[in-house]
Amino acid sequence: MFSKRMLCQDLPAYVGKEVCLAGWVQQVRQVGRQLAFWVLRDRSGWAQVVINGELAQNAPPIESVVAITGQAVASRSQQGCELQASAVSVIAAAAELPFELHQEVIRAGDEQTFNHRVLSLRHSRNQAIFRVKAAVLQAFRAYLGAAGFLEVQTPKIVATGTEGGAELFPVQYFERTAYLAQSPQFYKQMLVSAGFERVFEVGPVFRAELYDTSRHTNEFTSLDLELGFIDDEGTLMDLETKLLQDIFTTVREQCSSELELLGATLPQIEYIPRVTLAEAQNILATEYGQASPEGNLDPAGEKSLCQYAEQKWATPLVFVTDYPAAVRPFYTRTQSHTPELTRSFDLLFRGLEITTGGLRIHQHAELVQAMRMRGLDPEAYKFYLQAFTHGAPPHGGLAIGLERLTARMLGLDNVRQATLFPRDRQRLVP
Amino acid sequence: MFSKRMLCQDLPAYVGKEVCLAGWVQQVRQVGRQLAFWVLRDRSGWAQVVINGELAQNAPPIESVVAITGQAVASRSQQGCELQASAVSVIAAAAELPFELHQEVIRAGDEQTFNHRVLSLRHSRNQAIFRVKAAVLQAFRAYLGAAGFLEVQTPKIVATGTEGGAELFPVQYFERTAYLAQSPQFYKQMLVSAGFERVFEVGPVFRAELYDTSRHTNEFTSLDLELGFIDDEGTLMDLETKLLQDIFTTVREQCSSELELLGATLPQIEYIPRVTLAEAQNILATEYGQASPEGNLDPAGEKSLCQYAEQKWATPLVFVTDYPAAVRPFYTRTQSHTPELTRSFDLLFRGLEITTGGLRIHQHAELVQAMRMRGLDPEAYKFYLQAFTHGAPPHGGLAIGLERLTARMLGLDNVRQATLFPRDRQRLVP
Repeated sequence: MFSKRMLCQDLPAYVGKEVCLAGWVQQVRQVGRQLAFWVLRDRSGWAQVVINGELAQNAPPIESVVAITGQAVASRSQQGCELQASAVSVIAAAAELPFELHQEVIRAGDEQTFNHRVLSLRHSRNQAIFRVKAAVLQAFRAYLGAAGFLEVQTPKIVATGTEGGAELFPVQYFERTAYLAQSPQFYKQMLVSAGFERVFEVGPVFRAELYDTSRHTNEFTSLDLELGFIDDEGTLMDLETKLLQDIFTTVREQCSSELELLGATLPQIEYIPRVTLAEAQNILATEYGQASPEGNLDPAGEKSLCQYAEQKWATPLVFVTDYPAAVRPFYTRTQSHTPELTRSFDLLFRGLEITTGGLRIHQHAELVQAMRMRGLDPEAYKFYLQAFTHGAPPHGGLAIGLERLTARMLGLDNVRQATLFPRDRQRLVP
Repeated sequence: MFSKRMLCQDLPAYVGKEVCLAGWVQQVRQVGRQLAFWVLRDRSGWAQVVINGELAQNAPPIESVVAITGQAVASRSQQGCELQASAVSVIAAAAELPFELHQEVIRAGDEQTFNHRVLSLRHSRNQAIFRVKAAVLQAFRAYLGAAGFLEVQTPKIVATGTEGGAELFPVQYFERTAYLAQSPQFYKQMLVSAGFERVFEVGPVFRAELYDTSRHTNEFTSLDLELGFIDDEGTLMDLETKLLQDIFTTVREQCSSELELLGATLPQIEYIPRVTLAEAQNILATEYGQASPEGNLDPAGEKSLCQYAEQKWATPLVFVTDYPAAVRPFYTRTQSHTPELTRSFDLLFRGLEITTGGLRIHQHAELVQAMRMRGLDPEAYKFYLQAFTHGAPPHGGLAIGLERLTARMLGLDNVRQATLFPRDRQRLVP
């Protein structure tokens, strides 16, 4: 039945010819007993279908799947063309919808739209979000591939967490307890040492965090990269700047209609300003009267700092550097003259942290010492420490939260909107 | 220190110039107290380094990380060029190696090479395997992207399994028990119904299988695709044929030296023969005197059938079709005239099943009935069934095991060799 199916977008090329379209009935406008106009939608867009005679008397419910054969004709009432139906086959009739779907935005609360996610994803805004998200991924991989990075897959079932056991989901792994990987951190470092030098991974990460905010879900996609033979965290910030430039350019080119539909504008990036955490806290205190938590920024501070960057440097992006060792993981490299500070950074974008990165310790003895200082047992991390016994180069890396990046690019107010099927403490289905 | 570093492969372009190389010391050949030849390795390959005078008296242990400054010179003894060292900096000295690494194959047993995976991955054969694996992925995505498939990410923490609870790893998800996804099956079908029509996903899948074979690990990478508006499983087999043609062509082009190193040849595919399971069992009985299990093939049968395909059709690939409903999951479409048989298939490649695929049921009532016949409770699958209430198109799809495909392409005798950090019942580290 579908061997001759074509897409709505191709209809204009077939005016005067017999064609077959198949998709979802998005709208039915009944003009009389013998005439109706349907809007048929498929993955390429939509087409108007003119239904005459008896066929017009049996419109299927909205969102039913139909196949329509007919002639492509120049449209009388509007530019473009439409399908003059000669036969309609209802392939799957839809039950009544739980909410009005095809308004400019869906008329239902978050809970209901996520409960009926398959239905709400059919909305043009949601279709656009996930096309942009896929383009981000494609650009991320293309840029890194061209820069000599190898794509890798590391295990998601792990023996120990990267940060000492907090926020881990336990897995019953045969007779043992294992955990879901919070990040590929250890493994990407190990692969640098394994001679690949430059690796990246796109994969799920799992955080058993109790947060219930618009910025957190418990499973998300992490864009991770790690590279060896670097000795300056500036190299990482330069790399991320170029990477984001490239991603934004790709999305602008490939997804212009999606950006327009979503009313989103992507920044032109020349240079992303870099401020130390101390400077950032000072700006927040002086300019906004905001106090910051010890050694960190809070969400309100992240927002204000991005506002400041917009006004001062005309960019919605800002790197925050020189975080204290006390708030960074044990493997973070510290500054040689100021060992209480690290060679790590965060990247804020439109008020939200989207990246953490930095240089790592590459000497075995130093790592063991750093673990002991945190009260971690080196014995539990033997498989990781072993990677530093036979020659590991100086290295560093970063991770970008894909859903956060997508949400900030598109001005979505919740990362869940950039997640097909979000997972949080309340939600395990669909 | 590394800002002027170049790669070994670029050395010939700098003959007569001062350069800096950095990498691992792979070999030290001491010619006298004042002269040594080192082989330095980086991600691009290797270079010979000539060490004169005092520098030659302090060779670091094999696999140490070093940076070497010197002059690129035309090689006296061999074609190409070498580095005449003027300064050597040992960045990370290596401890003694647990086995001889740089023989043609590593001289150690599987257990030891996997225990020291970071080290064994440095072997040129292992580097080559994972470059091929990355190229397979890249080709898979490029082909499907061009064919209108959207890349998606579906949750790995799920409420229920796709097959009724067997072989699931339980996860402690806050106050509840959840499971690790055995496959993105339900979600990719839901996304077809969500209007994306054509989706693919590259992601980890988790199977709590007790098998201890060269074909199984408990976590692997699944290449999944699903598409709507098809009504013939032949469409899926045609698609997979073209997809594999494209993957093999890409790998031949991008990884010719890796294939050579591994002694691997990829088949030219014109057409992949299709035999029904009944025919396959008959061939095995008649030609090889092998009995098959009811409604299936066993590993020995898969091997013999591929041998038969080689001899009869000069191809190492064969589709097996028409599996009985009794051995396929509940969502598999059955044949209208022979409802005890399904519209599903497996693909065998060089003696191993690398794909299962088929048409799926798209009608809600039919799905509910199929679940009840298997003793599954539709209530537990409500989130999945809901996707079939508001118009789901006829659809189907398939999944390819990435490690199995890579292993069969390269003639590796165990899927673990195509897995960076394998997970099985015994192995949770590294």
